[in-house]
Amino acid sequence: MSRLLELLKIKYPIIQAPMAGGMTTTSLVSAVSNGGGLGNIGAGYMTANDLRVQIRDVKATTANPFGINLFVPEHVQYNESLADDSFTYMKPFRKQLELKEEVVRHYDSNFEDQLQVILEEGASVCSFTFGLPNKGVIEALHQNGTVVIGTATTVVEAQEIERLGLDAIVVQGSEAGGHRGNFLHQTDHSLIGLMSLVPQVADNVTIPVIAAGGIMDGRGVSAAMCLGAQGAQMGTAFLTCTESGANEVYKKAVLEANEDELILTKAFSGKFARGINNYFIEQMNLYDKELPPYPIQNTLTKGLRKEAGKQSNSDFMSLWSGQSPRLSRAISAQQLIEQVMDEMNNILM
Amino acid sequence: MSRLLELLKIKYPIIQAPMAGGMTTTSLVSAVSNGGGLGNIGAGYMTANDLRVQIRDVKATTANPFGINLFVPEHVQYNESLADDSFTYMKPFRKQLELKEEVVRHYDSNFEDQLQVILEEGASVCSFTFGLPNKGVIEALHQNGTVVIGTATTVVEAQEIERLGLDAIVVQGSEAGGHRGNFLHQTDHSLIGLMSLVPQVADNVTIPVIAAGGIMDGRGVSAAMCLGAQGAQMGTAFLTCTESGANEVYKKAVLEANEDELILTKAFSGKFARGINNYFIEQMNLYDKELPPYPIQNTLTKGLRKEAGKQSNSDFMSLWSGQSPRLSRAISAQQLIEQVMDEMNNILM
Repeated sequence: MSRLLELLKIKYPIIQAPMAGGMTTTSLVSAVSNGGGLGNIGAGYMTANDLRVQIRDVKATTANPFGINLFVPEHVQYNESLADDSFTYMKPFRKQLELKEEVVRHYDSNFEDQLQVILEEGASVCSFTFGLPNKGVIEALHQNGTVVIGTATTVVEAQEIERLGLDAIVVQGSEAGGHRGNFLHQTDHSLIGLMSLVPQVADNVTIPVIAAGGIMDGRGVSAAMCLGAQGAQMGTAFLTCTESGANEVYKKAVLEANEDELILTKAFSGKFARGINNYFIEQMNLYDKELPPYPIQNTLTKGLRKEAGKQSNSDFMSLWSGQSPRLSRAISAQQLIEQVMDEMNNILM
Repeated sequence: MSRLLELLKIKYPIIQAPMAGGMTTTSLVSAVSNGGGLGNIGAGYMTANDLRVQIRDVKATTANPFGINLFVPEHVQYNESLADDSFTYMKPFRKQLELKEEVVRHYDSNFEDQLQVILEEGASVCSFTFGLPNKGVIEALHQNGTVVIGTATTVVEAQEIERLGLDAIVVQGSEAGGHRGNFLHQTDHSLIGLMSLVPQVADNVTIPVIAAGGIMDGRGVSAAMCLGAQGAQMGTAFLTCTESGANEVYKKAVLEANEDELILTKAFSGKFARGINNYFIEQMNLYDKELPPYPIQNTLTKGLRKEAGKQSNSDFMSLWSGQSPRLSRAISAQQLIEQVMDEMNNILM
């Protein structure tokens, strides 16, 4: 049994990525944890109260360990006129969707309140993206018996995670869908494929490494283990599962996408993220360098994305996906775990 | 024994990448082929006569199969003023290196003559980059008993290679050093990590797949096999070997580089390639969108690169490398092959 499996107290080296924005329903998280992997609540955008409710729901439906992921707030400096301009660019889209609702420009981080809930309710695992919590937070979580995991996109970021005393590292390859987790490097210096990133990180840290990005099946999990990872985190693979909260239009888009349709864009949030190319990205990329930073642009596009989802209009939805959409399957999370483990055992026997 | 090993008549699934520009000396190619892998002459920039001489030299030093790689010429349309401007940007660098030699702006493809030499001299393997040869060329090579290999960066490119009747596909991941091999896609749609690219290609073609990009050791070769490849092509790993023709300053730069220093740039050639960031790239990237296309920019920078090499000035050299420089070793090619196979056998036993 690997150190990671011991640490996380799980049976299989399969971690369901904590996709934020409603994907990680209680039924998905519980199905993964009940199936022998680690389910994860993507709590980045959740209110403290919603998080408390979901933690209790998950605990009611699985006795196995599960995790919670938080976004570490970043200091944001920007010119208010960038937000004005961005709003202007998006006016025609709002009209097209007949969106009347006022744009919310104000942004409050829920981070401190979310942390308080996690300390009060207790959780097996707490992972962080976009940065690292301070020493005090890490100690408080450890005292509560919570395993603390960081997200790295380079060797230096991984070393910083180990130096601060975290217990494991999610190593995000350039293949990954959704937001880039870089926090010490600029994105263009941290888009490193897993084939390169995993062994270089594994050689330079002593805590367990979890590979993330483009892993969808037993071939990917086996490859990650060969490279030096002790586990694989899969997002897109769980996104199209029955239990995932992704919009059906979104699931269909991923199931039908090809690997050459995935692009990096700041259009939806002001931070680079990988998703399926669509009308909104194409239009907003014209203003690529003029958009306000994350989380401002994210707040500005929120109403638009929500309304597009309601209308099942994929032109304006953020269709985050890793680079392996051809490998996605429309099955249950338990079936996915079973099939992946079968495939892996056939390869690594 | 895999179909690839049968096809190439080699012992180990290790292919030395055909790095162009003087890296693939006869002693490197022969050492790899004598060591049980497939040595490759990177003939892209060679004159027909130099290629003929090297083919004879390699044959005199190994009885085992070896390959030759050619660049398929592309139709180039550009505005002459772009070349004028690019020359102007580089004037201060020429002054700094005290480079008096006239800039050669004229470009002739040696492709037809190179092919003729390969048909006359005979070779076990001929691979192509930047595009595909026509049916007649493929047939002539096949009639000569030469295995024909194409380079793909997406599933569609791989399918095109199979459709044209080639025998195997080098699948180039985003991790790869040197020039991008895309020929049907724009670069930004074809930067796909091997973790994603190999299984998606393997599911959609029937001919053998060779993984290329960031693979440096037994972990990488094992991972490539798990993903569905039958062999691994390694460039940077052989670049720092004793027998490689790379300038010592270049070897040292790779041996000391970190994964976050590798960037994609058009600065040296007009075509995207991955290398270690340096002064020339930083300066020329200011004019990124205004440079003439490949091979024009490549021709314009040739004298500069050559003189920088003579002066061991790495500020102006193209320091191509994949994303795994931390894994590079300064050993002989035979030692590298032995160590990689040992590492692989320890993992996949």
